[in-house]
Amino acid sequence: MCIPDEITTPEVMIDVDVLDRNIARMAAATRARGVKLRPHAKTHKILEVAARQLAAGAVGLTVATIGEAEVFANGGVKDIFIAYPLWVTQGQAERLRRLSAQARITVGVDSAESAAFMGQNLGTDAGNIAVRVEIDSGHHRSGVHPDEAAGVARAAADAGLEVVGVFTFPGHSYAPGMPAAAARQEDEALIRAATRMAAEGFNVSEISGGSTPTALVGGDTAATELRPGVYVFGDAQQLELERCTPESIALTVASTVVSHHRTGPGEPGRFIMDAGSKILGSDRAAWASGYGRLLDYPGARITSLSEHHATVEWPDGTPMPALGRRLRVVPNHVCLTINLVDEASLVSGGVFTGRWTVAARGKNT
Amino acid sequence: MCIPDEITTPEVMIDVDVLDRNIARMAAATRARGVKLRPHAKTHKILEVAARQLAAGAVGLTVATIGEAEVFANGGVKDIFIAYPLWVTQGQAERLRRLSAQARITVGVDSAESAAFMGQNLGTDAGNIAVRVEIDSGHHRSGVHPDEAAGVARAAADAGLEVVGVFTFPGHSYAPGMPAAAARQEDEALIRAATRMAAEGFNVSEISGGSTPTALVGGDTAATELRPGVYVFGDAQQLELERCTPESIALTVASTVVSHHRTGPGEPGRFIMDAGSKILGSDRAAWASGYGRLLDYPGARITSLSEHHATVEWPDGTPMPALGRRLRVVPNHVCLTINLVDEASLVSGGVFTGRWTVAARGKNT
Repeated sequence: MCIPDEITTPEVMIDVDVLDRNIARMAAATRARGVKLRPHAKTHKILEVAARQLAAGAVGLTVATIGEAEVFANGGVKDIFIAYPLWVTQGQAERLRRLSAQARITVGVDSAESAAFMGQNLGTDAGNIAVRVEIDSGHHRSGVHPDEAAGVARAAADAGLEVVGVFTFPGHSYAPGMPAAAARQEDEALIRAATRMAAEGFNVSEISGGSTPTALVGGDTAATELRPGVYVFGDAQQLELERCTPESIALTVASTVVSHHRTGPGEPGRFIMDAGSKILGSDRAAWASGYGRLLDYPGARITSLSEHHATVEWPDGTPMPALGRRLRVVPNHVCLTINLVDEASLVSGGVFTGRWTVAARGKNT
Repeated sequence: MCIPDEITTPEVMIDVDVLDRNIARMAAATRARGVKLRPHAKTHKILEVAARQLAAGAVGLTVATIGEAEVFANGGVKDIFIAYPLWVTQGQAERLRRLSAQARITVGVDSAESAAFMGQNLGTDAGNIAVRVEIDSGHHRSGVHPDEAAGVARAAADAGLEVVGVFTFPGHSYAPGMPAAAARQEDEALIRAATRMAAEGFNVSEISGGSTPTALVGGDTAATELRPGVYVFGDAQQLELERCTPESIALTVASTVVSHHRTGPGEPGRFIMDAGSKILGSDRAAWASGYGRLLDYPGARITSLSEHHATVEWPDGTPMPALGRRLRVVPNHVCLTINLVDEASLVSGGVFTGRWTVAARGKNT
């Protein structure tokens, strides 16, 4: 595919046709599994993408911060889950109070102390905030052991919060060969926590899991809801994990070849493109082939990344793309890429059709 | 140091007292070496920081993109070097034309083809743009071999551009034990290229090198100018390379402890902070101790980073910081951190004094 002339480099480019297919496919797949879909909006941070997800049947959005929730609530979204173990200060309580007047707001909690602190700062408004207890299903980041979920739920209820369920993020699914095992552990952990909480008298109606690698794995699940994010755009990590195909990559960074270097005969060529870590992001898992992929040249490797330079190693035997050639780069982790730009260019049917604002860019607090 | 109440987390915080000391020290050191200082503004992207650098004697600024040059030229900076091998399309030629009416503009070039293309698109305005030939001094990114510099200079002159000198970036200095060796290679490469160019009749009056790791290494240098960037703020990479001290760290990310995990007896503790890759950036060199450092707790290690979570391993034997504690995180690579925020909070004498806009944030094109 050629890059339309309206697009300069380096610039983020969304293929809206592919985006719409990705949204429809995940909506159909979760419907077929009988679970609700609450996509994680940290991946796109764009109101127009959220509107398409909700139109396709999503029950609401997931976000990571109060600031992201504010952007989407102001944009009219009525049901938002902040999937993070918030430490709610007085300032944050005031923001949650305002949010809960605009939308149904659910937040994460993973300790008795943070539940008590949140309840204290929310005061008489605590009952307007629903909470889900975060459990650790094997990723070992935040979240309590499933056996401790009921204790956290008890503290939250004592603090006046409305306990509605449990959630987990199986982040250890982002590695080769892991999705199926991580999905199983996720399911077991959710069942265990929900069972313990129910035994203590809680109404555990929201059992939330999911990630792009695990959302489409397996059949029956204990989850009532899944929260994949990356599926809307895809990225090089999902490609290399075989959780998406080149045809389902909806977001690329348009980039120009600016510098050529021929090494010795029989050695691979090397060239420099103008997309660096300030637009691609610099996440690189130990198992990744490089710092992203060239969508139209699967044999090329991005071996090094500076702020404004991608160093590409070119397989021996074919001529390197000429200086000035514009190529599509697939970032390793698309959630970081979108957070680096204020706007994204849109392409449909190979034609430039406009730009979307990345409304929640940089909303870290 | 405590974090002033005006600052929420995660938020970028600049200690202006430390910043001013860093600016004064580099200005004095380059003056003592008899070289001009042209700081790289990609590190800070802030007009107020540039003004302080120029007031302390910098001859102008270095930037990486035309967009950054536009921000600083609009802010009144009169001498700007775009240290990048630009591929100048007609659109970019138009922007360079406008820039050259506001400031003296110098750009990089590293091939005969890109020089010819630039000259062709600039047309009769080519003579208003000064060029420096980029050479490779061992980093193997962009830049030609020193022996090829004169050929590129010839092509640039033939294209109507004003050839004024040569430059290099010794990026291989960013590794333990490398700064002295990289500085020597840098110097040798600059001398070699400048000598060849002079022999071909070019007036090589601008010989530009430098990076924060090499700027203060050694005495005599062939360079007439150095371009360090990171020295204004410092970062965890420079700390671990011993190119700065904890006392010279001017920029940190204020972050809150949100989740606690106690592992078995005799094992280190683990906690989660709310600063992740969307504010710290995720650069991590192979030799780095982790994804950044806690400024006030040198024994702690940031072992893992998600978008909104830093996982900290705490040394055994001392109590972990309590939930809700606010700590200062030093990012690995500060140039990425500043590019993630629209504003930075200022502290002086331990007191909050306001905010600066990151005017050139996201100016990738």
